Amino acid sequence: MDALGQALTILDYAAIAVFGASGALAAARRKHDIITFGFFAAVTGVGGGTLRDLLIDAPVFWIARWEYLAVCLAAAGAVWLLGWGRRGERLLLWLDALGMAAYAAFGALKATSLGVPPLPAVVMGVLTATFGGVIRDILAHEPSVLLRRELYVTPALLGASVFVGLHALDLPPMVSGLAGFLAAFAVRAGAILFHWQMPGFPGRTPPE
Amino acid sequence: MDALGQALTILDYAAIAVFGASGALAAARRKHDIITFGFFAAVTGVGGGTLRDLLIDAPVFWIARWEYLAVCLAAAGAVWLLGWGRRGERLLLWLDALGMAAYAAFGALKATSLGVPPLPAVVMGVLTATFGGVIRDILAHEPSVLLRRELYVTPALLGASVFVGLHALDLPPMVSGLAGFLAAFAVRAGAILFHWQMPGFPGRTPPE
Amino acid sequence: MDALGQALTILDYAAIAVFGASGALAAARRKHDIITFGFFAAVTGVGGGTLRDLLIDAPVFWIARWEYLAVCLAAAGAVWLLGWGRRGERLLLWLDALGMAAYAAFGALKATSLGVPPLPAVVMGVLTATFGGVIRDILAHEPSVLLRRELYVTPALLGASVFVGLHALDLPPMVSGLAGFLAAFAVRAGAILFHWQMPGFPGRTPPE
Repeated sequence: MDALGQALTILDYAAIAVFGASGALAAARRKHDIITFGFFAAVTGVGGGTLRDLLIDAPVFWIARWEYLAVCLAAAGAVWLLGWGRRGERLLLWLDALGMAAYAAFGALKATSLGVPPLPAVVMGVLTATFGGVIRDILAHEPSVLLRRELYVTPALLGASVFVGLHALDLPPMVSGLAGFLAAFAVRAGAILFHWQMPGFPGRTPPE
Repeated sequence: MDALGQALTILDYAAIAVFGASGALAAARRKHDIITFGFFAAVTGVGGGTLRDLLIDAPVFWIARWEYLAVCLAAAGAVWLLGWGRRGERLLLWLDALGMAAYAAFGALKATSLGVPPLPAVVMGVLTATFGGVIRDILAHEPSVLLRRELYVTPALLGASVFVGLHALDLPPMVSGLAGFLAAFAVRAGAILFHWQMPGFPGRTPPE
Repeated sequence: MDALGQALTILDYAAIAVFGASGALAAARRKHDIITFGFFAAVTGVGGGTLRDLLIDAPVFWIARWEYLAVCLAAAGAVWLLGWGRRGERLLLWLDALGMAAYAAFGALKATSLGVPPLPAVVMGVLTATFGGVIRDILAHEPSVLLRRELYVTPALLGASVFVGLHALDLPPMVSGLAGFLAAFAVRAGAILFHWQMPGFPGRTPPE
């Protein structure tokens, strides 16, 4: 169990590092300076969890522990120094899938452990997994990840729902969490590898 | 009084359903999938009230009661199934006016009842009535409702001000609330029917 | 010391007025009405401090004291009445530099005084100084101040860091705060006068 706890902590920091790096990427695209790199990395890395904590009235997780911000800044520095090859981008896509899946389960778990009912707990998982990227895109003045047809919110929703469902059946948190993580990751992997999509709105489009 | 309380509750859910449907519309415009429909409906439906609750340090209203999110998702499902004819859009415009007016008064009432002073309480009414739509537009990468010249913030401001003013005169909350609701709805109706506008900034426009 | 306390209060309101005026400017650019002027002035004026207070779980500063909102609205009224000449714009640029510098130090000071550790306290200074403008730009559907190459976040970061560093050396808050203010203002002044910039990302730009 202790090994699992350590694994969770490692996954937590890894997810933040990956989201932070994706924020730094947004800054790199516009040739920004190192300070802007750090700003985008921090906002993207901790943004989703920050919204979750504000909504469920928990202390914002990165205020009391400086390590979270340091991880974001390290990710920004790494992107700056290592540059951004095609291979790095592919790697990041997969790391991001891992981070998203981890956060979908982790966000739902944290909310559930604080007494949030099932449906809002699922929403917390989705927000934790996706909102860092949403804030990153808003700040970068780009269409948000929500507007891409690629499956991203859907796997987060599935992962959070699997966790909450299994947790309601009284399975141990680690089992439910792992199942939620795997469900989210599997669907996201399918979206990356096979370009899975959900059918779009079939009705008449309303005028602008 | 009980009947009025029930009316308030019904109005509360109706406003959320209408705002949720307008969020789903934003998703329909871009032919998104059902998950994105739900996401936009939820964010738009509960966004304004969420900001209000965070600012006045009240528990976020939809965390403890799952019904609010369920109403948003039902609205998203209804838009998906029923499609989006011209008649539906007209109906929604009027329902949105009802919801906005109800929320302007309700937001100011909730803030006042928690001891918020008059001027910030008016702001809470305005934010509750308008910010769901603002967040919807930001997420959809469209110019926000604030930037349209149509009267929208103004009726919300009027409704919240009327409530706070009458409340300061010690009128019963139901009377003040109803007056605020009617004031907001009347001006918004005028904007819809007669294209009422306020004069724009008359001065020289500063350079970009 | 009392004189210094008064100076801080004056600086606090002055910073809000200046940020509020810059919000009204965003509304003036698009010839909006007086209500939208007020909305933008309020959001820009109190936005950064609001985010800071939410994150560190302090009561949002403008809820209990209506004077802050009144200052924002007065700034909006002043921009409306006085119009917007070239001289006014130049003046505002310098007032904004003063406000930003004051808020970088003040935000870090408030966070530190509430027990926030050094690194997050620096972030609070940066957010207080810059996020009002970020929200203004997002609402106005313009690329945010973060995306300009001009030095703006950097002086805020420097000022907050100087404050936190000197405070860790046990210097009195007024001395640390003044040093932080001066550091931020000096670098921002250099950016205005001499167009100082930081080097942009030197690596290959990733594809969009």
